[in-house]
Amino acid sequence: MLLKDNIPVTYLVGKIKNELLLIAAYAVAIAGFHYFFPQFRISIPIAVPAILATIISLLLAFRSNQAYDRWWEARGLWGAIVNESRSLTRQLITFLDAGNEEEENFKTRFVRRQIAWCYSLSQSLRGQNCYIRSIDFLEEEEVKFSRRYTNVPNSLLKLHGMDTQLAYKNGWLNDYQQVEIDRTLTRLCDAMGKCERIKNTVFPSTYSSYIHFCLYLFITLLPFGLIEFFGIFEVPLIIAIAAAFLLVEKMAIHLQDPFENKPTDTPTTAISQTIERDLKEMLNDSQKETIPHLKPARTEEKVFYIL
Amino acid sequence: MLLKDNIPVTYLVGKIKNELLLIAAYAVAIAGFHYFFPQFRISIPIAVPAILATIISLLLAFRSNQAYDRWWEARGLWGAIVNESRSLTRQLITFLDAGNEEEENFKTRFVRRQIAWCYSLSQSLRGQNCYIRSIDFLEEEEVKFSRRYTNVPNSLLKLHGMDTQLAYKNGWLNDYQQVEIDRTLTRLCDAMGKCERIKNTVFPSTYSSYIHFCLYLFITLLPFGLIEFFGIFEVPLIIAIAAAFLLVEKMAIHLQDPFENKPTDTPTTAISQTIERDLKEMLNDSQKETIPHLKPARTEEKVFYIL
Amino acid sequence: MLLKDNIPVTYLVGKIKNELLLIAAYAVAIAGFHYFFPQFRISIPIAVPAILATIISLLLAFRSNQAYDRWWEARGLWGAIVNESRSLTRQLITFLDAGNEEEENFKTRFVRRQIAWCYSLSQSLRGQNCYIRSIDFLEEEEVKFSRRYTNVPNSLLKLHGMDTQLAYKNGWLNDYQQVEIDRTLTRLCDAMGKCERIKNTVFPSTYSSYIHFCLYLFITLLPFGLIEFFGIFEVPLIIAIAAAFLLVEKMAIHLQDPFENKPTDTPTTAISQTIERDLKEMLNDSQKETIPHLKPARTEEKVFYIL
Amino acid sequence: MLLKDNIPVTYLVGKIKNELLLIAAYAVAIAGFHYFFPQFRISIPIAVPAILATIISLLLAFRSNQAYDRWWEARGLWGAIVNESRSLTRQLITFLDAGNEEEENFKTRFVRRQIAWCYSLSQSLRGQNCYIRSIDFLEEEEVKFSRRYTNVPNSLLKLHGMDTQLAYKNGWLNDYQQVEIDRTLTRLCDAMGKCERIKNTVFPSTYSSYIHFCLYLFITLLPFGLIEFFGIFEVPLIIAIAAAFLLVEKMAIHLQDPFENKPTDTPTTAISQTIERDLKEMLNDSQKETIPHLKPARTEEKVFYIL
Amino acid sequence: MLLKDNIPVTYLVGKIKNELLLIAAYAVAIAGFHYFFPQFRISIPIAVPAILATIISLLLAFRSNQAYDRWWEARGLWGAIVNESRSLTRQLITFLDAGNEEEENFKTRFVRRQIAWCYSLSQSLRGQNCYIRSIDFLEEEEVKFSRRYTNVPNSLLKLHGMDTQLAYKNGWLNDYQQVEIDRTLTRLCDAMGKCERIKNTVFPSTYSSYIHFCLYLFITLLPFGLIEFFGIFEVPLIIAIAAAFLLVEKMAIHLQDPFENKPTDTPTTAISQTIERDLKEMLNDSQKETIPHLKPARTEEKVFYIL
Repeated sequence: MLLKDNIPVTYLVGKIKNELLLIAAYAVAIAGFHYFFPQFRISIPIAVPAILATIISLLLAFRSNQAYDRWWEARGLWGAIVNESRSLTRQLITFLDAGNEEEENFKTRFVRRQIAWCYSLSQSLRGQNCYIRSIDFLEEEEVKFSRRYTNVPNSLLKLHGMDTQLAYKNGWLNDYQQVEIDRTLTRLCDAMGKCERIKNTVFPSTYSSYIHFCLYLFITLLPFGLIEFFGIFEVPLIIAIAAAFLLVEKMAIHLQDPFENKPTDTPTTAISQTIERDLKEMLNDSQKETIPHLKPARTEEKVFYIL
Repeated sequence: MLLKDNIPVTYLVGKIKNELLLIAAYAVAIAGFHYFFPQFRISIPIAVPAILATIISLLLAFRSNQAYDRWWEARGLWGAIVNESRSLTRQLITFLDAGNEEEENFKTRFVRRQIAWCYSLSQSLRGQNCYIRSIDFLEEEEVKFSRRYTNVPNSLLKLHGMDTQLAYKNGWLNDYQQVEIDRTLTRLCDAMGKCERIKNTVFPSTYSSYIHFCLYLFITLLPFGLIEFFGIFEVPLIIAIAAAFLLVEKMAIHLQDPFENKPTDTPTTAISQTIERDLKEMLNDSQKETIPHLKPARTEEKVFYIL
Repeated sequence: MLLKDNIPVTYLVGKIKNELLLIAAYAVAIAGFHYFFPQFRISIPIAVPAILATIISLLLAFRSNQAYDRWWEARGLWGAIVNESRSLTRQLITFLDAGNEEEENFKTRFVRRQIAWCYSLSQSLRGQNCYIRSIDFLEEEEVKFSRRYTNVPNSLLKLHGMDTQLAYKNGWLNDYQQVEIDRTLTRLCDAMGKCERIKNTVFPSTYSSYIHFCLYLFITLLPFGLIEFFGIFEVPLIIAIAAAFLLVEKMAIHLQDPFENKPTDTPTTAISQTIERDLKEMLNDSQKETIPHLKPARTEEKVFYIL
Repeated sequence: MLLKDNIPVTYLVGKIKNELLLIAAYAVAIAGFHYFFPQFRISIPIAVPAILATIISLLLAFRSNQAYDRWWEARGLWGAIVNESRSLTRQLITFLDAGNEEEENFKTRFVRRQIAWCYSLSQSLRGQNCYIRSIDFLEEEEVKFSRRYTNVPNSLLKLHGMDTQLAYKNGWLNDYQQVEIDRTLTRLCDAMGKCERIKNTVFPSTYSSYIHFCLYLFITLLPFGLIEFFGIFEVPLIIAIAAAFLLVEKMAIHLQDPFENKPTDTPTTAISQTIERDLKEMLNDSQKETIPHLKPARTEEKVFYIL
Repeated sequence: MLLKDNIPVTYLVGKIKNELLLIAAYAVAIAGFHYFFPQFRISIPIAVPAILATIISLLLAFRSNQAYDRWWEARGLWGAIVNESRSLTRQLITFLDAGNEEEENFKTRFVRRQIAWCYSLSQSLRGQNCYIRSIDFLEEEEVKFSRRYTNVPNSLLKLHGMDTQLAYKNGWLNDYQQVEIDRTLTRLCDAMGKCERIKNTVFPSTYSSYIHFCLYLFITLLPFGLIEFFGIFEVPLIIAIAAAFLLVEKMAIHLQDPFENKPTDTPTTAISQTIERDLKEMLNDSQKETIPHLKPARTEEKVFYIL
């Protein structure tokens, strides 16, 4: 609930500032014309813009719904990535023996690579350099290997698979356990592919354009419907109504593309940090003292989870 | 059905008391102005606020829908936790041999830890001390172990996994059974992660603000549309209409955050108690006499299941 | 399609009889007042109640949608119970050897217990005695065992699990087959838990109250909007419109709680009978002559499937 | 796209012919009354029927949505049956050895029985004789066996299961493969049960009656609202509007029951033919010459896929 | 976001050009008639077309929703095909040994056939020659084999299955691994069948016709409602409003059939190219230099992903 106080209203209003200024100028012009040229007064029944308003509301509500679904699906996918990362780590820890140094190194490498996978997927979805954060969790050879790939997270999944094969060959995993870890990798591969699908599929833009067009038609007609009853007071009223509609439209546009490096994004970096914290704790309880920055992590979440 | 009589209407009306007082004062002021200064009477066509009402209804209905979906998903997740807890217990009882004392102790420890997991998840989601109820079901070492973790329920799941490994090493579980129990743990891990996702993701707040803004715009215009037909009777009418809209809005706000320690929450504590009862019964039929408080448990549910 | 002729319209109209009488009296009173005291005639623009009607329609449609979803989910769960019961029986018959008498007895006991499980779940969801029908399919010891439990169907599932363990110990089931039957039990456990969730979770009642409140506000205002055009004819019109709205509301209330022992319930008893018939046929083809009442079973369905 | 040209409009219009004639007579009567008895002219504001129209549209849209969901679910289930039939065939072919005559016969019998299962389920859902087409694909003993069952497709699934057991006993399938085929059977059993659920569950009929009632109320009032502006031209207008609403209602009624042997049904026969073609091709590539009627099959689809 | 600039507005407007010209002529005719024959002026209250507009908006919004769902499902299915293709490749690489030449050839053949499967499914859904692109990835015998089938992608899946059997016989895959790869094939088979279902199921066309009919009724009445207030200015207004409605309708028609070889299609070719790139990279890291055309692939995506 606290996070709600942090809405970057100014950020959003900033986005529609230009539109609002234009609309204000238009409303003032109509009011002035109405006042100075009473003989040319045009007044239309309020029903005309009202009907447009109903239609736009309906379409906007449906559209917000669809945009919200995309956004919520994206959030759910990253929630699934958290769950699968934890499950993968638990499986590695409980399927392999403890104590043996070689196996411990193996587990550490695998889990660190999983953390790197989360960070690199997060960066890759935003179209940024995949190695920015993930490089700290990868061994030199792994980086070298993945550089040959276009899709870095996919290359890390292949390394996961090859390490599973290695563990199976070494007898660290039995037949079922190998297949079980492979299934977890398949689910991670699914989540990755679904994120890419949301990223790469544009929202039907004709639909958007149509709503935008109706909205401006409505705003154009609105002053003529209101001026008779409100006179000069129609100016703030029109700005308020227009702002309300434009904000909802803007909101839908932002929600429908949840991986665009904007404040309304799915907080992939913050989620990756949570995964890092949990996986490190699961991997090595004794290293607890090295990650005591629990509070700061939370604050960072606050910054990213804002919507 | 009985539970429906217990709605804390006063609780909810209490939440909008201040808003209603303000609105009443405003409506009275308008009516007074209308009566004492007939020459300045302002009357707008009822169509203007009516259109706003339609739009707000539409947006509010969609929003309630989304809030309801979150709430229902949260309820479904705790339903899944009930199911998985029972399945886990059934698996432990039927996969392991009966009679052997060591294995019986193992089962008891595992099932009690599962009860603790439910309570600690419930507390953790509400931001409260995870150990309040769960500590009674954990062994000292387990508490010590989990204290090193930020995420207590996750640490208990790791203990589950480590115990599964132990049972496998001891030959109590065969290859398939280990993997099968691991899958149940994966599903519990999923349910936990999904609850955390609902808890940590705020509802797009611009959307909420927009509805709130429209609602007050509507309430501001309403008296001018009604005063002509109803005179002083517009005051109760406006309070009634405003209350209706504000209540729906409040309801949506409550439903969308189902883990906030409010009366409209998902009844995680009551559900945990049901799990405790069922798991104890499944574990040890002979201990029946120690949990005969069937009726009181039901009453408690009544208190928590209210909505 | 035939079933549609059997709608208990009188049953439903009976439920709203009192409300309708009250509304009729109110409408007559308004018409009388209008006729005898023409100087006090109050007439409001039809737009005011009309707007309320649109809003209520919208909310009622959304609410019916959610109630329908609950009802349909409940129906789907019992459909899943049919499927899983058949699959469980098929697995028992094809995983275990045929011919061996001990194994045949085992299968019979298991399948009969599954039938008992369906009946006891059906009764338990309606808050009735779990043993009414199921006791015919249980052995004495099983009844004794399950009486120690609060949740009878859950105790039968535990017995299922213990029998699976027995079959595994006896070498009747191999490793995979045990796990595979355990999975079917897990799915039955899921379906049971989901039914309990629907049963135990009340529909957000503030939402209902709000709609109810709006509905009466609308009915109160309606005569004043119609009297001018229809005169005394407004009385039947108001009754018709009010009846329509109240019926939809009543329908939603009935649909949202599908396990309340009402004619609109999910037909759990009829479905259990279908399961009984199919499982008996699958178990023992030669016993065919003992269950030739195919037609009567269908008629009974007719009675219960009504909505 | 081509299929769209084949809409049986006359079929549908035929369904509402009587209603339309009645409505036309009513509209003409009102117009005549209006013309010959101008002193008794009744005219109501267009707003009254208009509001009813909005409400009916809303309810009809929601209802169409739910009917469409049922229809689409039914279509999806038959799509799943196609997929599972293909997967089952692929599993039989690749799990069992090739070349051995006994195993080849086994495969042929199994796959032919799967084709029979599809046809018998299709007939059974429509309440027709299950053996009409399926009998060509069953051996005499299989027909004899299934005749003892009320639910023929379920008996064939049991035969599938018994054959799987046989193959396991003979060592043709290993432990995993048996379980894997059993899972495919479970999914087929699910699809069958879900189709039966859609078939046996009537749509809440009170809901339908209510919409029907509102619709006629609306049509009754409509002429009084239009006559003032359109005079005699209201007759075609009323017929057109009434036809539009009645068609949507009829459409919803047809969509909601997709297994009633009507042109708007799920094309279960055509889909079964596709399954027959694909399974035969997969089973025996050399028999290709015996099924060259590819084109005619398509044409038949055209006839059945119509909506 | 960039892709949004490329909307082929002209493409879409082109589609409704004829309708718009007709509507413009009609609007001009009405305006002319109104101007030259003032004695025959017909004016209807704006409420009549307004109500129709609301109803159409509602139905159009619902319909767009359903069309969008089909389109989004189709997109999701191709996303699943990407994921399963990657998972299949990872499984082949990590389940089989590396280094052995025979096994390497096996893997290469299998993965190339998977690429061919994607291309042939893409072509087959569009009703085009299945071999156009896929033939480059198939061996001669495979082409010969699949030519005997009506459904080419299904024949390739059978080859996948037969190769899995071969690998199992050769001891390259163990029992679990065979079954695990078979499951991946089952999921691919599912995705294929679901695409075919979307392709072969026409959208209920009565529903479409009804909306179309209402839309033209509305456009016919509109000029009479607007002419009184706007005079000659009604012409552009009517064109604008009609264009808006027709565009949304056209959009829905395009979205609901996502495999028709139109610019608004699911970009199956571009997705298949992405799969080709990823699978080749996974298969053979050293061949990197042969596929450096990363940028052009992206551009091509730009062309196809347009909506």
